Amino acid sequence: MPSYKAPVDDMMFLLHEFLEIEKREDLPGFADLTPDMTRAILEGGAKFCEEVLQPLNQIGDEEGCTFENGVVRTPTGFKEAFKQYCEGGWNKLGAPEEVGGADLPSVITFAFSEMGSSSNQAFSMYPGLSSAAYSALWATGEDWMKKHVVSKMVEGEWTGTMCLTEPHCGTDLKLMKTRAVEQEDGTYRLSGTKIFISGGDHDMTDNIIHMVIAKIPGEDGKLADDLSTVNFFMVPKMLIDPETGKITQRNGVSTGSIEKKMGIKGNATCVLNFDEAVAYRLGGRPSTKKTEDGKVVKSKSAGMAGMFGMMNGARMGVGIQGIAVGEVAYQNGVAYANERLAGRSLTGPKNPDGPADPIMVFPDVRRLLLSSRAFVEGARALAFWVSMLFTVARSAKDETERQEAEDISQLMTPIIKAYFTDRGFEAANASMQVFGGHGYIRDHGMEQFVRDARINQVYEGANGIQALDLVGRKMTSKGGRATLTFFGKIDAFIKANENDAEMKPFIEPLRTGYKRMGECAGWLMNNAPKNFDNAGAASYDVMNVFGTVALAFMWAQMAKLSLAKLKEGTGNAEFYNRKLTLARYWMEREIPMTAAWTERAQAGSEGLMELAAANF
Amino acid sequence: MPSYKAPVDDMMFLLHEFLEIEKREDLPGFADLTPDMTRAILEGGAKFCEEVLQPLNQIGDEEGCTFENGVVRTPTGFKEAFKQYCEGGWNKLGAPEEVGGADLPSVITFAFSEMGSSSNQAFSMYPGLSSAAYSALWATGEDWMKKHVVSKMVEGEWTGTMCLTEPHCGTDLKLMKTRAVEQEDGTYRLSGTKIFISGGDHDMTDNIIHMVIAKIPGEDGKLADDLSTVNFFMVPKMLIDPETGKITQRNGVSTGSIEKKMGIKGNATCVLNFDEAVAYRLGGRPSTKKTEDGKVVKSKSAGMAGMFGMMNGARMGVGIQGIAVGEVAYQNGVAYANERLAGRSLTGPKNPDGPADPIMVFPDVRRLLLSSRAFVEGARALAFWVSMLFTVARSAKDETERQEAEDISQLMTPIIKAYFTDRGFEAANASMQVFGGHGYIRDHGMEQFVRDARINQVYEGANGIQALDLVGRKMTSKGGRATLTFFGKIDAFIKANENDAEMKPFIEPLRTGYKRMGECAGWLMNNAPKNFDNAGAASYDVMNVFGTVALAFMWAQMAKLSLAKLKEGTGNAEFYNRKLTLARYWMEREIPMTAAWTERAQAGSEGLMELAAANF
Repeated sequence: MPSYKAPVDDMMFLLHEFLEIEKREDLPGFADLTPDMTRAILEGGAKFCEEVLQPLNQIGDEEGCTFENGVVRTPTGFKEAFKQYCEGGWNKLGAPEEVGGADLPSVITFAFSEMGSSSNQAFSMYPGLSSAAYSALWATGEDWMKKHVVSKMVEGEWTGTMCLTEPHCGTDLKLMKTRAVEQEDGTYRLSGTKIFISGGDHDMTDNIIHMVIAKIPGEDGKLADDLSTVNFFMVPKMLIDPETGKITQRNGVSTGSIEKKMGIKGNATCVLNFDEAVAYRLGGRPSTKKTEDGKVVKSKSAGMAGMFGMMNGARMGVGIQGIAVGEVAYQNGVAYANERLAGRSLTGPKNPDGPADPIMVFPDVRRLLLSSRAFVEGARALAFWVSMLFTVARSAKDETERQEAEDISQLMTPIIKAYFTDRGFEAANASMQVFGGHGYIRDHGMEQFVRDARINQVYEGANGIQALDLVGRKMTSKGGRATLTFFGKIDAFIKANENDAEMKPFIEPLRTGYKRMGECAGWLMNNAPKNFDNAGAASYDVMNVFGTVALAFMWAQMAKLSLAKLKEGTGNAEFYNRKLTLARYWMEREIPMTAAWTERAQAGSEGLMELAAANF
Repeated sequence: MPSYKAPVDDMMFLLHEFLEIEKREDLPGFADLTPDMTRAILEGGAKFCEEVLQPLNQIGDEEGCTFENGVVRTPTGFKEAFKQYCEGGWNKLGAPEEVGGADLPSVITFAFSEMGSSSNQAFSMYPGLSSAAYSALWATGEDWMKKHVVSKMVEGEWTGTMCLTEPHCGTDLKLMKTRAVEQEDGTYRLSGTKIFISGGDHDMTDNIIHMVIAKIPGEDGKLADDLSTVNFFMVPKMLIDPETGKITQRNGVSTGSIEKKMGIKGNATCVLNFDEAVAYRLGGRPSTKKTEDGKVVKSKSAGMAGMFGMMNGARMGVGIQGIAVGEVAYQNGVAYANERLAGRSLTGPKNPDGPADPIMVFPDVRRLLLSSRAFVEGARALAFWVSMLFTVARSAKDETERQEAEDISQLMTPIIKAYFTDRGFEAANASMQVFGGHGYIRDHGMEQFVRDARINQVYEGANGIQALDLVGRKMTSKGGRATLTFFGKIDAFIKANENDAEMKPFIEPLRTGYKRMGECAGWLMNNAPKNFDNAGAASYDVMNVFGTVALAFMWAQMAKLSLAKLKEGTGNAEFYNRKLTLARYWMEREIPMTAAWTERAQAGSEGLMELAAANF
């Protein structure tokens, strides 16, 4: 049975040595985040995740959810754990104070969500999506919703979901068929089928608040075939009296079925049927805009910023699930490698009194483990930095700093979603591989990590879509401003450290990677406008280059900090020396990959497009 | 529900155009293999696999095997399918004529086993291991075993297994605890526990013949802690009268449990308890050898060549499972990509009358599919070639040809096992990714391919062990003769074609890859002897370089042949043009990867070994 110990020390290092959050007094709430305070929060979260959530992880996988007589039941222990989760205050970490939340910045909430996901990804998705839903409702809802609905969601009395996908469309929401028709009282009646709704139904709370997108039909009753009439709605499972906030009666939402899936079996993935369900349009009064001929028209779409905000947060959250599964799989891989005896070290026995050496003596076993750990810790640094940039973008005093933070966090979001989840899956597979045949056996729990990790590459926009978003939108928007800003940060770091001899093993590979990023960007600039398929063909390789170099940038900074700490002689030397080993690993064995991807990115689209679809 | 169509045309191309097997009249049985004959065999096999085995694949996964009251039951339909399998003669394709086999060369038997595995890997493992077992028994057994046991296994009346792994040891068989004690009648009594025994028990036949390795204790009753006393035994589940071949009574073999696994659920993976089971030592009279002081001593080990032969065949078979899962996953990925509508081509609508374009228009979707197909067809070419070399090594008239064939097939075996199964897993994941969220849902069957494919990287020696075998043994034995022979073949091909302008797009990348192979080999030669950990640290990257370049060698040859056929104007132009597209794909997008791996291979072991085990 797998075990998990939350990486509190590494998180403390990132928060208080790497990011020095307590010094950012200009950011709301940051001044309170003294090391004592954050350690108390993280250790409390760690204890809860290790003791309550992690022991339910295999049970959730074995039992899965059930759907009988219209009722969805979660696995043994989930309902009670959710109660404890809410009682412990973990559901309200990031919620606004007005509704009883702790209003902690996302750098803390994401740290906790990593632990939750390492412990039990299927469980953690219930509160994870719920908090995404209440944030969106807080941003777009009416006062009575904030007062009566958001507050209950924050309290954990009710949960929430995101309803986007339909049977015939996921990414291409223009094809959506769900319709919402306005009623005389200003509410809507919403009908259609939504699928893949995580936590769409369950037995943990009395009500579920669905955040749904749907089209408003035209006067002819027809749906437009574009996004112009797409709106964002709140559709409660049980109807609510706006005055009292009390549940009145069942709404027209029912669960059609739950999916049998590869993994995350403890989370109910529902088909939801909306049948004339009462729906509330969000986003306030639709905005107006001038048409070309000067007329002022009311926009037919509203609240979409709320939905996009929810989706962006979710993409970041999924990326963190990639880190989370890498961390827990790694920990178990290490334990097995130190315990399992087989063969002898290639350089002579290391455990001469035992019948064989632990397999940790083999370079290739270490490669599997180090690649996971160097990814996990580098990715965590990037995720924490970007999480802080979210706050900086909203609240920093300096406008340039705000804009830079916004640009970089936008640029990094698809990378965090896609590159992190690919690597998380790889890390889960690597640790499973360390177990040999035993990794394939369910009891050991390693194959569950692989199955659970696999969803992260798919949901919230499949990773190929993220790569296209990176090259087609994030890198190019506003004349490539975000790309240039990010390049500028790396360039400045290289220049500031290139004469430091100790930093040479980190700066030179970073420079190599940085040059290749530039090569990729330059090639795209010259070749994508001619033929957009060139951007599509290069997208995945470019994303891998950017992801690898972004982590190299983190590792170079962490190496610099570790060298300084070792020189000072303060803190745990073992900790800083390990950081240096991992930083070297990244430079030595990951940066070389960027050569291959950069070459491939420049191959163009012809070779991919020449075969007729029928000849595949 | 997934579908499967056996790639008979591609197999015919490889057998009769690429390898021209019918021209090898010097090899036993090859002259009979006219195109009509092989097409009849392959089409018969295809029909059986498509119509009987494939429809049971998802059922097998859903139901799995059960173990109740000491009885193992296979999923619905498996028993009947096995009967049909044997009645159709598919169990005896490669068996010796003396026992009723068709004695077809392995180039045919492997082709059929690819189809079987694409259709239903879990099922195909039963007859697959059974034929490995009967071949080993044929090679090492006594006359009565050949007459009464092998014949029944060939007929499919009984099946067979391989029993190597124990709870505490798999790769390191020196640690084995299973013991066999000689009795006065020359038989042995064998006791111990063997695990991970595929098809170790089932309800399809009346008897199961276990091929078991065990140690013979010394006179003091103790087991040696090395391989010196390891022997190979036949242990039937039901005892057999050597005179009549009839079953007499139950032997001391019982099933302890069956494993709950990630995949291949239709195959019963058993824990077998041997309790004073009657065992027959194989390999005839143990050989004698002279010790250093001139004494002639009887070897305490026998029959191991039979076991190693069985293992080598099994490694090849597992590599083919990697091709097989890649093929079937690819086929389903293509069907979905042509059917699923979402978004519009980056270069303007390709299906303007429809609501959206099929996702096949996107370069990144094509990348996922082409990478799978280029792997599958390149790997199939290599596997067929090596399968033919097995026969050449045994039966060619020319000694040099025999030796070269033996060397190359030995060198390629770990590559086929490890590189093919890594890529097969990747291909299964790629096609699952094409399905987006639907790929994660069990009904569609795509995630089963991923789960089933995952075992191939683990069993018959985890892939890291194969990589070590490649660099530590296969590349270096006999002064690196096999490596040099293989290099010589590529070099000769490059030289013979470097002035052909049409071949330039294939020859130049092949040359680049070939140079990198040489760089890897040279680095190992200089650095491994100093520190064997350098070989271990480089092993996986070197294996990836060799695998990629070996397939590039196949693709360059197939490109040459396709160009010639197109010039001749005979045959299916579409087929040859597709081969050229795939060959270009391999050169353009796979050869670049070898740059990265070659650089990494030369990084040395220091970075992997510096961290103390306790600091991981």
